Amino acid sequence: MSIVDPVSQIFLRLERRNQPMHVGGLQLFRVPGNAPADYVHRLVDRARAQNTIQPPFDKRLKYRLGQPFWTDDHGFDMEYHVRHLALPEPGAIRDLLALVSMLHGALLDRARPLWEVYVIEGVTDHRFAIYTKFHHAMMDGVSAMRVLRRFLSIDAGAENFRVPWQLPPQSTTRPPWSAGLAMLRSGYRQAAALPAAARSLYDVWHDARHDPDFTGPAQAPACMLNRPVSGSRRFAAQGYSLSRIHRVAEAFGATVNDVVLALCSAALRRYLIDHDALPRDPLIAMLPVSLHDDDETTGNRVGLIYANLATDIADPAERLAAIKRSVDYWKRRYKRMSSEQIMAMVAAMSAPAGLNLLAGIAPRRQSFNVVISNVPGPNEALYFGDAEMLGMYPMSIVLDGQALNISLVSYRDMLEFGLIACRRALPSMQNLLKYLGEALDELERTAGRAADS
Amino acid sequence: MSIVDPVSQIFLRLERRNQPMHVGGLQLFRVPGNAPADYVHRLVDRARAQNTIQPPFDKRLKYRLGQPFWTDDHGFDMEYHVRHLALPEPGAIRDLLALVSMLHGALLDRARPLWEVYVIEGVTDHRFAIYTKFHHAMMDGVSAMRVLRRFLSIDAGAENFRVPWQLPPQSTTRPPWSAGLAMLRSGYRQAAALPAAARSLYDVWHDARHDPDFTGPAQAPACMLNRPVSGSRRFAAQGYSLSRIHRVAEAFGATVNDVVLALCSAALRRYLIDHDALPRDPLIAMLPVSLHDDDETTGNRVGLIYANLATDIADPAERLAAIKRSVDYWKRRYKRMSSEQIMAMVAAMSAPAGLNLLAGIAPRRQSFNVVISNVPGPNEALYFGDAEMLGMYPMSIVLDGQALNISLVSYRDMLEFGLIACRRALPSMQNLLKYLGEALDELERTAGRAADS
Repeated sequence: MSIVDPVSQIFLRLERRNQPMHVGGLQLFRVPGNAPADYVHRLVDRARAQNTIQPPFDKRLKYRLGQPFWTDDHGFDMEYHVRHLALPEPGAIRDLLALVSMLHGALLDRARPLWEVYVIEGVTDHRFAIYTKFHHAMMDGVSAMRVLRRFLSIDAGAENFRVPWQLPPQSTTRPPWSAGLAMLRSGYRQAAALPAAARSLYDVWHDARHDPDFTGPAQAPACMLNRPVSGSRRFAAQGYSLSRIHRVAEAFGATVNDVVLALCSAALRRYLIDHDALPRDPLIAMLPVSLHDDDETTGNRVGLIYANLATDIADPAERLAAIKRSVDYWKRRYKRMSSEQIMAMVAAMSAPAGLNLLAGIAPRRQSFNVVISNVPGPNEALYFGDAEMLGMYPMSIVLDGQALNISLVSYRDMLEFGLIACRRALPSMQNLLKYLGEALDELERTAGRAADS
Repeated sequence: MSIVDPVSQIFLRLERRNQPMHVGGLQLFRVPGNAPADYVHRLVDRARAQNTIQPPFDKRLKYRLGQPFWTDDHGFDMEYHVRHLALPEPGAIRDLLALVSMLHGALLDRARPLWEVYVIEGVTDHRFAIYTKFHHAMMDGVSAMRVLRRFLSIDAGAENFRVPWQLPPQSTTRPPWSAGLAMLRSGYRQAAALPAAARSLYDVWHDARHDPDFTGPAQAPACMLNRPVSGSRRFAAQGYSLSRIHRVAEAFGATVNDVVLALCSAALRRYLIDHDALPRDPLIAMLPVSLHDDDETTGNRVGLIYANLATDIADPAERLAAIKRSVDYWKRRYKRMSSEQIMAMVAAMSAPAGLNLLAGIAPRRQSFNVVISNVPGPNEALYFGDAEMLGMYPMSIVLDGQALNISLVSYRDMLEFGLIACRRALPSMQNLLKYLGEALDELERTAGRAADS
């Protein structure tokens, strides 16, 4: 029995019916051409037969004197953790997303290990899906994406059949950050540990406000994205061509990340105009970013960017340029700082938001309007046994006052967007997918015109 | 906007992740022989098109100064309330029950009207199912069963297509009791209103303890049925021939209700022996019973019986006789009392249990081990549009310390059992269905031997 670390305790305490604190992912697979009719049924049976459960998948919560501990689950119930569902005919992706939205809106059972896996058959065009959820107290979004990568194989073959709960635990199952919420973790830890360092860095940040490209907390406008949330979710997911995004980035002298922000900005702008709710001031996005070189894949040099989404600018090229400038500000600043300085500054900036979150009160000034989190993913095709993975989409957390979360992961030549939202606060949120696609078309056209002229 | 009545507030306040406070029902239908392949799809579309929402289906909760009110839902979202799901091939009843167990374990969204309907296609042998859930604050178990009866028709025909949320509200949508929990309602109300009357009747009850056939609260043994519960559920449902039960009742000079209790007793006895957990003292069941003549169907003359299930007796005939004596005690007593005296006595008996429940503490002495609730249902075949209903099964509430609830409803010649339990506290609870069937066989054999001799 081991005590639940203080930060994970926060995620447990933050959980309410309208604010489930689990992350997840949706993976789409192709049923192999030669598969029998009961292929998915057999696959579920085979998965359930893998009953050597590795930590942390075998641990459940136990409270002693009000203090939570992780303890072995002696009543482990495989049929509870691994479910077999199906879509109604003809199994449209729309129906898959509706089902997964419903599942992501339901709270995990605190009496059991805090994870569930759903194998969903009957997706149109001979596909099936796996939806997995993990409590954030067990695993953060990045770890979840890693786990969903680790059980897959680069070779197709029935002998490469592995399931997440049988993987040996990694030494760093919990990287020090994840989409948005991790800021709370480092903020909480470091604000407590390093008050002096944090305070001096806060002064640095304060001075920076004289820079016109500076975007920081407390600049975000009031927006319908920042309403109280209900307990029901809408998940929307789609992949967009990474090579197309690369070409656009090149044309504008921007990074892939800049273009991603520009796509999100254009889509949000249109959605908010649809609802007659576009704030006069630009939306602010909060981005957890890796500070490593592109080749590095491990470690925890992580920064936090408050990006100006420039949703007040109608022209797509100008909008992208404004976004790029606000991101570049942070890159320049981070370049001059040590890891320790950066982490301390992140702590100083995010601690107030974290404390607000904990106290359950809406901050008087909105720190940011939306979290956009981009996790690098595998470049090569992956297989679950002999089933090729066609796509994987991250599913994050919606919080009171943060009704939308945009998470991305790359896979092969696709950038896979997973949008999770409160379906009551943000009606017809799935329109954002269409708008993202059209924003990419528009940037391509704009780049083409610029090249022609 | 109207205030939520105090008793419904209790149901809202009792709700926790491991103790969802909704009731429900599962209905099984036959797809008509001439139906197109997308029959269920069309049916869902047609149901969703019925968008005139009658009270209470259009009301959601709203809190003002901590006080809950019912208010119109201006963001009504039909696709959220009416879901379309499917079973994996071949759609065994076992898979249907697993799916419905999962759905019954999930909390309703408090931001919306507190009901959900799931149309589930792909049940084997050309069947489909409808699972409906209502929060107990909106509707109790008996009202839920009534609603699930009212939208059906005694004639098959597509023109008889009605859905629960378009029915005009009934004058008495809330009868004053329901399976088990209603005792809390009348107890709370009347204990407050009539302390003197309740106290004097408590004395009557106290005297009654000298009667050897008397079974009352605080006689129940400690039992695995009375453990803390998790948030996960197991639903098991099956119908048994009402004529067979009638014949057994006749053979033993007992009522149908006595035989039902004997079947439950035999099944629980075997289950507890399987788990090496049969208490030395007999289990006590709590039964809400109507005090009306058989012909009456309305009104609120309701009694409360603590039945001795005689699980300590191995012989089935002797066990049935002991159960009958303990039930007869209450019938004799109720016959000599006015409605008011009965209601006040019920209040006096159930108030302590209710207060324990509210305070969230386990009572020092167990009042009863299990609730068994029997609601009379329709005798004639019923149809949803042109689909014949093959069975309907009630789904009640599991509480901390009450890990099993047995609810019954009659339909045509069947007595339909719906067993809902915490699947962690009561592993393999579904074995009770087999044991119920075998208990009926055994009583028939015993009756036959008695007739031969």
